[in-house]
Amino acid sequence: MSPAFPRVALIGLGLIASSMAHAMRAKGLAGEITGYARSTDTRAIARDLFCDRVTETAAEAVRDADLVVLAVPVGAMGGIAAEIAPHLKPGAIVTDVGSVKQAVIEAVSPHIPEGVHFIPGHPLAGTEYSGPRSGFATLFENRWWLLTPLEGQTPEPLARLRALLEAIGANVDEMDARRHDLVLAVVSHTPHLIAYTMVGVADHLRRVTQEEVIKYSASGFRDFTRIAASDPTMWRDVFLTNKDAVLDILGRFTEELFMLQREIRMGDGEQLHAYFTRTRAIRRGIIEAGQDTPAPDFGRAPAAAPGRTKA
Amino acid sequence: MSPAFPRVALIGLGLIASSMAHAMRAKGLAGEITGYARSTDTRAIARDLFCDRVTETAAEAVRDADLVVLAVPVGAMGGIAAEIAPHLKPGAIVTDVGSVKQAVIEAVSPHIPEGVHFIPGHPLAGTEYSGPRSGFATLFENRWWLLTPLEGQTPEPLARLRALLEAIGANVDEMDARRHDLVLAVVSHTPHLIAYTMVGVADHLRRVTQEEVIKYSASGFRDFTRIAASDPTMWRDVFLTNKDAVLDILGRFTEELFMLQREIRMGDGEQLHAYFTRTRAIRRGIIEAGQDTPAPDFGRAPAAAPGRTKA
Repeated sequence: MSPAFPRVALIGLGLIASSMAHAMRAKGLAGEITGYARSTDTRAIARDLFCDRVTETAAEAVRDADLVVLAVPVGAMGGIAAEIAPHLKPGAIVTDVGSVKQAVIEAVSPHIPEGVHFIPGHPLAGTEYSGPRSGFATLFENRWWLLTPLEGQTPEPLARLRALLEAIGANVDEMDARRHDLVLAVVSHTPHLIAYTMVGVADHLRRVTQEEVIKYSASGFRDFTRIAASDPTMWRDVFLTNKDAVLDILGRFTEELFMLQREIRMGDGEQLHAYFTRTRAIRRGIIEAGQDTPAPDFGRAPAAAPGRTKA
Repeated sequence: MSPAFPRVALIGLGLIASSMAHAMRAKGLAGEITGYARSTDTRAIARDLFCDRVTETAAEAVRDADLVVLAVPVGAMGGIAAEIAPHLKPGAIVTDVGSVKQAVIEAVSPHIPEGVHFIPGHPLAGTEYSGPRSGFATLFENRWWLLTPLEGQTPEPLARLRALLEAIGANVDEMDARRHDLVLAVVSHTPHLIAYTMVGVADHLRRVTQEEVIKYSASGFRDFTRIAASDPTMWRDVFLTNKDAVLDILGRFTEELFMLQREIRMGDGEQLHAYFTRTRAIRRGIIEAGQDTPAPDFGRAPAAAPGRTKA
């Protein structure tokens, strides 16, 4: 059987692109995978681990490609699109994996030539690790991959892309780009900002409390540090390009926090108890929807003895 | 060899007490374990799963006990101490497992009779589950157990308690109660409040966004929901009794959040990037200190297909 896409070009070779390459190779979905990244080191690693070949320019990578995946930080999408546009093959599909959709559409679609299909996308998958060594073939299994097709998208290329994403294990949903950005501001962008903030506060206090903040982190704090260890460039771009939705949700968050803070100050135990009871139900919903493990502590392996790193 | 403590009384039979019982039984550290809880159901479960006997009053449970463990919510400690005080055996050790130490000391120590040793403690161990069925023998392995001994504590009872806690796997540290409450406000209490708040915001928005908040929670939000599923009564009491330290840390948190929010509004990418880079180092520190797993995504098992619960 011939592969779904004879030639695939990956632009940007971090966690998502490398995981896609591993997954496509494992399932024989791509004939040849070409990669491009700005850094020579990254290209060398990609060549060793998951690309059939790497190129020194993005333009060269996309030549003759049937599928082009833009997997660079959101802020770099526009520049890359301008660079590759003249070299895209007629009939090619271009997709991206950016965490923000409206800004990417604004930056990329003006460059896309007639006869090339741009289908914006966003895999809700990732870990706290980044770079070309962090990818693995099962990253997308049972994770959502949201597509936000533009108006007037013809069905056939969309169906081909969907089939590829499903073949690497993802559950594909389609939604409007604006709605995507709002929903993601709630479930991802604002939680990340808050985690970064809490870790930042602890970092200041670390100097005051010696190493106690790290030593005793298992009592809650460490859950925040995982997502606050994500790629800084990617997240900077997310906040700058999904500004309105993030500021809206942040406003709601601080209102809510001030209400709880006031209840603590006033000693209003009844309200606090009611609030904490309500939030439990959400966790239950997430576990029932198969979106997290019910195992205590995320099913973490027991930590190593303090001071020693795990084998 | 005779057990470390011939008779142990557990007052309150939730996650911590049940885990202690399982651990002490597994290692033969207690001769007889007696339990008391307010609820008849809880007592019945405890009798089945981990107590040699249960009693209908706390007073009865502590009679002749060599070690008494107060494992009720912080707000209930004073009342229980008053109730059991006249029945404590001379020479007995009384400890507690409350997450706040100054308030517990103020509530409990006035009731403790001459000749009984009250040694306040706090295991930094737990999961998002609660109740008598949630305990397991390895909960304390390689977790910290903080003791905040009162001034003038004689060394022998302290050494006996330490030895017991170490025998069930904990790493014991001693610190001042005031410092404990500040450090815990940073590493545990404030993170929990923030997680509760973020989950509360999402809960409001859930109605607006149908089930999207739950469906797409794996993109960050679900990490918050774990700790926001913890026992509401326990957490209400923590915030009411460690009010000053929590309000202090919350103040720092909102200052910091407003700074980041302003940088987002102003489009200051450089500052955001620098901030997000700094927070990565903390995660590294926690992993090096053996306080969390380095496995991506906490080493979570892959989630089940959406809509289906895991086996």
